[in-house]
Amino acid sequence: MITPNVHYAELKDSYLFYHIAQKTGAYLAAHPGAHLYRMGIGDVTLPLCPAVIAALHEAVDDQASGARFHGYMPECGAPFLRSAVAAHYGARGVRLAEDEVFISSGASDELGDILDLFDRSASALVIEPAYPAYVDANVMAGRRIVRLPSGRADGFLPEPCPEAAADLLYICSPNNPTGAVFDRARLQRWVDFANEHGSVILFDAAYEAFIAEDGLPRSILELDGARTCAIEICSLSKTAGFTGTRLGYTVIPHELVRGGMRFQDMWVRNRTTKTNGVSYIIQKGGAAVFTPEGQRQIRENIGYYKRNALILTEALDRLGLWYCGGRNAPYIWLRCPDGMGSWDFFELLLREIQVVGTPGEGFGACGEGYFRFSTFGSREDTAEAAARLTALLGGR
Amino acid sequence: MITPNVHYAELKDSYLFYHIAQKTGAYLAAHPGAHLYRMGIGDVTLPLCPAVIAALHEAVDDQASGARFHGYMPECGAPFLRSAVAAHYGARGVRLAEDEVFISSGASDELGDILDLFDRSASALVIEPAYPAYVDANVMAGRRIVRLPSGRADGFLPEPCPEAAADLLYICSPNNPTGAVFDRARLQRWVDFANEHGSVILFDAAYEAFIAEDGLPRSILELDGARTCAIEICSLSKTAGFTGTRLGYTVIPHELVRGGMRFQDMWVRNRTTKTNGVSYIIQKGGAAVFTPEGQRQIRENIGYYKRNALILTEALDRLGLWYCGGRNAPYIWLRCPDGMGSWDFFELLLREIQVVGTPGEGFGACGEGYFRFSTFGSREDTAEAAARLTALLGGR
Repeated sequence: MITPNVHYAELKDSYLFYHIAQKTGAYLAAHPGAHLYRMGIGDVTLPLCPAVIAALHEAVDDQASGARFHGYMPECGAPFLRSAVAAHYGARGVRLAEDEVFISSGASDELGDILDLFDRSASALVIEPAYPAYVDANVMAGRRIVRLPSGRADGFLPEPCPEAAADLLYICSPNNPTGAVFDRARLQRWVDFANEHGSVILFDAAYEAFIAEDGLPRSILELDGARTCAIEICSLSKTAGFTGTRLGYTVIPHELVRGGMRFQDMWVRNRTTKTNGVSYIIQKGGAAVFTPEGQRQIRENIGYYKRNALILTEALDRLGLWYCGGRNAPYIWLRCPDGMGSWDFFELLLREIQVVGTPGEGFGACGEGYFRFSTFGSREDTAEAAARLTALLGGR
Repeated sequence: MITPNVHYAELKDSYLFYHIAQKTGAYLAAHPGAHLYRMGIGDVTLPLCPAVIAALHEAVDDQASGARFHGYMPECGAPFLRSAVAAHYGARGVRLAEDEVFISSGASDELGDILDLFDRSASALVIEPAYPAYVDANVMAGRRIVRLPSGRADGFLPEPCPEAAADLLYICSPNNPTGAVFDRARLQRWVDFANEHGSVILFDAAYEAFIAEDGLPRSILELDGARTCAIEICSLSKTAGFTGTRLGYTVIPHELVRGGMRFQDMWVRNRTTKTNGVSYIIQKGGAAVFTPEGQRQIRENIGYYKRNALILTEALDRLGLWYCGGRNAPYIWLRCPDGMGSWDFFELLLREIQVVGTPGEGFGACGEGYFRFSTFGSREDTAEAAARLTALLGGR
């Protein structure tokens, strides 16, 4: 009799966003025709930019042509896209070899898949509040999870400490859910800590394109010593609106070696065994993001979301609610008013003003009492949500 | 210090097709401008059919439109595609619930990912010769592999036997690489065997669309008792030319339960944690395959490849070489002439007639002395390869 992976039974009842979708679904079933102001899950709303659309159409035409048709793609990514990503890093002063760049179907897929490179005995540090998949993917693998809570005192940017010693260190900056961003000095201390302990940092850079302030690191590979301790996982989901189109990339430096095994080599072996590469059509669309025209167009879209962030933070300022994020990140992390719990605040907003956010508790116990707004909604919905929030809470 | 997954060090030097690509690359470097007749890796050459192309263009246009834009897709697949696949099975007499159908990026991705559902102690039966990724994906997980050799005596369709007892049973029919197809009675014995032992069959149905003879099972779910022991993994790669476009689907019946855990539930949890679904654009293209127009068009393409198979098998008949496959499968599996070894025959064909095939030894030790031809080449290349083969071996 086969034994199932019993670690699945250790998972909490349901995945956060699935749970929220069920709650909003129940509300809509009870209130047919109601409009919800969705500031919850971080899904983009603007269409793909024209440069990407043109490249996608062209790639579809290639697939209709006997002469230009593409079958199996190289498993680690199309050379045209790997080189475009490497050049993009190069323009920011980070030199990468093309074969250090791996094309993926997106950061969420990659964050799960990459764990195959490490022994199951490896422990994983999760700085909470955190993207719930970090925890769940490791629970599924039966790994020991080390939780490091953060809070207002450290600006949700904790320092390395003896209790943070673990084999895998998840660092997400700009952070989901808090919107906090590590500056160079703070991030350098984590890089040094990883090198001292022989740990590997899984650096989730999905929101790097939202960094507005000069001097904040957009890639961990900008830091000294990162090439011997870090894997960077990135995505076009938020950078270029690819949440439903699916594309990402991962950087594994050649110098990242543990126990005599080179992770870049191992990942080549993993990809060539377990995948047949990412869709040619989607990779062509992704390459258009890295053209000058594509960069200009995605900047416009990011600017639109940043204006949403301003609308929401101005409302929070008026209401006198504490928050961080929003300036260098697409998320705003606020303290629920009057000591309310996260899920109570979620229910209140859904019931009274039809605004959907994400309860901070879903990102870990220390997120209790906080709440996340995404700034990826439409301008109309964002402005209306801000107005409704002001009306609901302004009189308290 | 983190410990890497040391099982990677147990893998053979390089993955078969990667190895072949290196050898052909070296030949081309030494003979610039040479044309190779590629009958090796099973990559399609015909462009996507018009119905799929139209659907892809339409989906790209949706992604350019504020009103029709699609962000995150449901992690287990778009309802329009899950229902289309379920209806496709229904038309063949196999009733499936929509939530038993999961959309994937393709069979190769899924064959690796699905292993997460099982405890690492689970042993895996591989009927050799076999697709090399079955073995490698389990080596990477540190699983015990049980190898069951097959051969000419059993028509490369072995019977269950005490030595075949294992927790996971890989069955690929129509088979890659041999092209052999299990008939109902033989496949039923494997289903019964799995149910008796509490094993789970991973049924690779990637080539089902090539079955030409009536009465051969196209899905393991046609058989009594399969719903309590089988997961079916399928792909549009060969069915509709999606090798470079990437789409597949997996069926997990509700009744598949072991140790009190339901695998369909577990897979929902896996997908919702570890993925954000498959590209909207590609899923729209895939749905067009299941329309009457799409089915007619893909049948034309499959007919083209079947004509290639006939050209190659006629040459083998003239040469008096033993082979199987080709009739209900896109692969032809032949005995190398004059007792030659697989890799020697590979080198001979590459050197003398620039024909690239796949050495049988790459599919397991019992494949030594055999050779695989794919029928997915162009008509011109296939006819020329057949003529060159006849000229090279006809005089022996």
